[in-house]
Amino acid sequence: MTEKKSLNELQQTVDTYINQYREGYFPPMELLARLTEELGELSREIQHKYGVKKKKDTEVEKEIADELGDFFFVLLCLANVEGIDLQQSLEQVLHKYNTRDKDRWTVKED
Amino acid sequence: MTEKKSLNELQQTVDTYINQYREGYFPPMELLARLTEELGELSREIQHKYGVKKKKDTEVEKEIADELGDFFFVLLCLANVEGIDLQQSLEQVLHKYNTRDKDRWTVKED
Amino acid sequence: MTEKKSLNELQQTVDTYINQYREGYFPPMELLARLTEELGELSREIQHKYGVKKKKDTEVEKEIADELGDFFFVLLCLANVEGIDLQQSLEQVLHKYNTRDKDRWTVKED
Amino acid sequence: MTEKKSLNELQQTVDTYINQYREGYFPPMELLARLTEELGELSREIQHKYGVKKKKDTEVEKEIADELGDFFFVLLCLANVEGIDLQQSLEQVLHKYNTRDKDRWTVKED
Repeated sequence: MTEKKSLNELQQTVDTYINQYREGYFPPMELLARLTEELGELSREIQHKYGVKKKKDTEVEKEIADELGDFFFVLLCLANVEGIDLQQSLEQVLHKYNTRDKDRWTVKED
Repeated sequence: MTEKKSLNELQQTVDTYINQYREGYFPPMELLARLTEELGELSREIQHKYGVKKKKDTEVEKEIADELGDFFFVLLCLANVEGIDLQQSLEQVLHKYNTRDKDRWTVKED
Repeated sequence: MTEKKSLNELQQTVDTYINQYREGYFPPMELLARLTEELGELSREIQHKYGVKKKKDTEVEKEIADELGDFFFVLLCLANVEGIDLQQSLEQVLHKYNTRDKDRWTVKED
Repeated sequence: MTEKKSLNELQQTVDTYINQYREGYFPPMELLARLTEELGELSREIQHKYGVKKKKDTEVEKEIADELGDFFFVLLCLANVEGIDLQQSLEQVLHKYNTRDKDRWTVKED
C-alpha cells in the first residue's frame, strides 16, 4: 500500500531528483519539446487501445499508465522550473469552470 | 493559505466535478485532442516568455500558470477515465530513473 | 484558377518571404514550439467539427483549411532551415510504405 | 534527379496510395492523434540535434528528414480527407502575412 502524497510533495521529490545532477533542469523551451515528445508517445498508446488498428497484446493498459507517468514527470519539471504551484493552478481552473463556465454542461437531475 | 492536498484527492475532485454533468468524460481520443490543444496554448506562452519575439506585457507568468492548470486538468481527466493512479505512475518513472537510467547524468560532487 | 506549383517552388516562396526580414528564420527549437502551437489550433477545429460538443457555426470548414495552412507554413520553415527537400522525404516515406509495410493493410479486390 | 512535382500531384499520389486499401483513410480525430505522434518523433530528433544532451551519431540529419516525411504524409492525409487544397491554404497564409501582418517584422535595408 503506497502512502498518498500531496502534489506539493511530489513536486519537491522531482526537484530533489533533478538537483542531485549537475545538468539540472532543461531550459523551458526544451522541456516543452520533451512534453511534445511524451504526448506523442501517449498518443501512440491511445491509438493502440482505441484506434482503427488495435494492438493485440495485453500490455496496452500498462503502457498508457507508464506514458502518463513520463508525461507527468516532465510537466512537474516545467512547473518547478517556472516556480508554479500546480495544485493552485488546478484549483483556479476548477474555480473558473464552477463560475464562468458553469452553464456549459448539463447538470444531472435526481 | 491553501491546504496541501494529495494527488489522489485532486483526481477525485476532478472526478466529482465531471460526474455532476450528464456529458461525463469525453472519449479518450478526444481527451488526447484536448491535451494537444492545451499543449499548444502552453507552447504559445512559453514562446512569449523565452522566444525570439518576446511579449512585452507582465501577464506572461500568470498565463503560463493558468495554461499549466488547464493542461493538468485534462491530464487528470485522462488518468481518471483510464483508471490510472497518477502518483503510482510517477513513482514508477522515478524508480526507472533511479535504477535503469542512474548513470545518464552527472551527480554533483560535494 | 490558381496555377499548380511544385512543392519545391512553394519551399522557395516561403524562403523568399522569410529572407526579406532581418529576423530571418526562428531557431529550430522555436519552430518546433510553433508547430506544437499550430497543431493545438488545428486540434481545436477538428474537435469543433468531429467532437462531442460540436460548434454550430458554418465556418468550421474554412477554419480547418486556414489552420492547416498555418501549420504547413511552419513545416516548410522547418524543412528550409534544415535544408530538407520535402518532396524527397515524402517519396522515401511512400517507398517505405510500398516495400517494408506493404502487407500492413488489406488491398481491395476487384 | 527527381522530377519536381506539384503539391497537388503529391496530394493525389497519397490519395491513390490510401485508396488501394480497404481500410482507407483513418477518421479525422485519429489522423490528428497520428500527427501528434509524428510531431513527438520529430521533436525527439530536434532535441538530439539542438538540445542539451546531443546525440553523438551522424544519423540525426537523415532522421530529421525522415520524420518530416512521416509528418508531412499524415498532414496530406488530413488535407485529403477534409477536401483541402493545401497550396491554396498556404497561399492564403502568405497573403495574410503580406497584408495584415506586414509590419510585424523588420524589412532588410539595402
